[in-house]
Amino acid sequence: MSKMEYVKPADIEKRSFAIITEELGDRTFPPDIAPVVKRVIHTSADFEYADNLVFSEGAVARARKAIEAGAHIVTDTNMVKAGINKKILAQFGGEVHCFVADEDVAAEAKARGVTRSTVSMERAAGLDVPLIFAIGNAPTALVEIRRLVDAGTLSPELVIGVPVGFVNVVESKELIQESGVPYIVARGRKGGSNVAAAIVNALLYQLVRREGF
Amino acid sequence: MSKMEYVKPADIEKRSFAIITEELGDRTFPPDIAPVVKRVIHTSADFEYADNLVFSEGAVARARKAIEAGAHIVTDTNMVKAGINKKILAQFGGEVHCFVADEDVAAEAKARGVTRSTVSMERAAGLDVPLIFAIGNAPTALVEIRRLVDAGTLSPELVIGVPVGFVNVVESKELIQESGVPYIVARGRKGGSNVAAAIVNALLYQLVRREGF
Repeated sequence: MSKMEYVKPADIEKRSFAIITEELGDRTFPPDIAPVVKRVIHTSADFEYADNLVFSEGAVARARKAIEAGAHIVTDTNMVKAGINKKILAQFGGEVHCFVADEDVAAEAKARGVTRSTVSMERAAGLDVPLIFAIGNAPTALVEIRRLVDAGTLSPELVIGVPVGFVNVVESKELIQESGVPYIVARGRKGGSNVAAAIVNALLYQLVRREGF
Repeated sequence: MSKMEYVKPADIEKRSFAIITEELGDRTFPPDIAPVVKRVIHTSADFEYADNLVFSEGAVARARKAIEAGAHIVTDTNMVKAGINKKILAQFGGEVHCFVADEDVAAEAKARGVTRSTVSMERAAGLDVPLIFAIGNAPTALVEIRRLVDAGTLSPELVIGVPVGFVNVVESKELIQESGVPYIVARGRKGGSNVAAAIVNALLYQLVRREGF
């Protein structure tokens, strides 16, 4: 195993971010956005995110304030939920909600001929706390968020819109970008649960000053 | 929202796989490997996996037999665990294990100056059932699997080696490819929890005949 370089566990992430920064070269980002872009590249090894990720004006600052004030996070899948650093979120009073695997959600979706994600977002809109949405898979979740926003029944602090895929994914992200809500979106087909969780964690780590790399 | 194409929820995945097949064009794969490659592209929207994914001879057939015989799955993170279709796995008697967030694992790792993933793999090796490893994040998990294999204390049915990252990731995958164990590896830096879970699910779906697309 001599080909492995020995790096202390605590230093692996720091070293990784140094490599990412080096390979980004002349590509620089505003100080609030850089940690988000780099953490997404860290979680995907895909430098396309340096171009794909778009942020509404002031989105990161507003999301940080919302988390500090105890905002909760709604995810479209349990994978996103599993990837979020819930210990740090809990320090600020936040929790993560994911309704997609609830049995009554599945039953209602089937009865209505809609996706479980659609029903999940309706449930989330009923939560009586400030909300950040982290959507890594389901374009129909973004469609439903837009519908609820247009109807005046939802006013999210941030929508992280990074579903991945080939059917209606690009369009669903555009719906969020045109909605007037604060957003972080990965344009195009790419994204995923890992990307959604990485964006939430980048926000959380900035709040506890782990953003130095 | 007129720009959205209406596709019935049940048809979204089928349509997605048709698009992937079309865009792969002349790139064809053996019948057991194609569903794995396509599902990874489906979960990442990244066609590089058509080139990155490598399979040891007969890996898919052996893994399918192992799952049918009740093999358990060991993951390096709870995100991979969350992404696996545990209902289908349970039909064959399998379970998913992930030790990385156990408090005693963290304590032991800290005391020994190794990663939690290293300790997790040692725990897994103590399970008295046939095992498939699905590693989406931690190169040190692959290093430890190789060490246990070399020591004769572990004989996995399959190692899915798809950690993502910048430090020792490429080398850790090579260690598995040279180990003599059956493997599915994503060469290079790319991979992730979503990719690891997608590979497991592709194997599971083949067993319940959802592999037609």
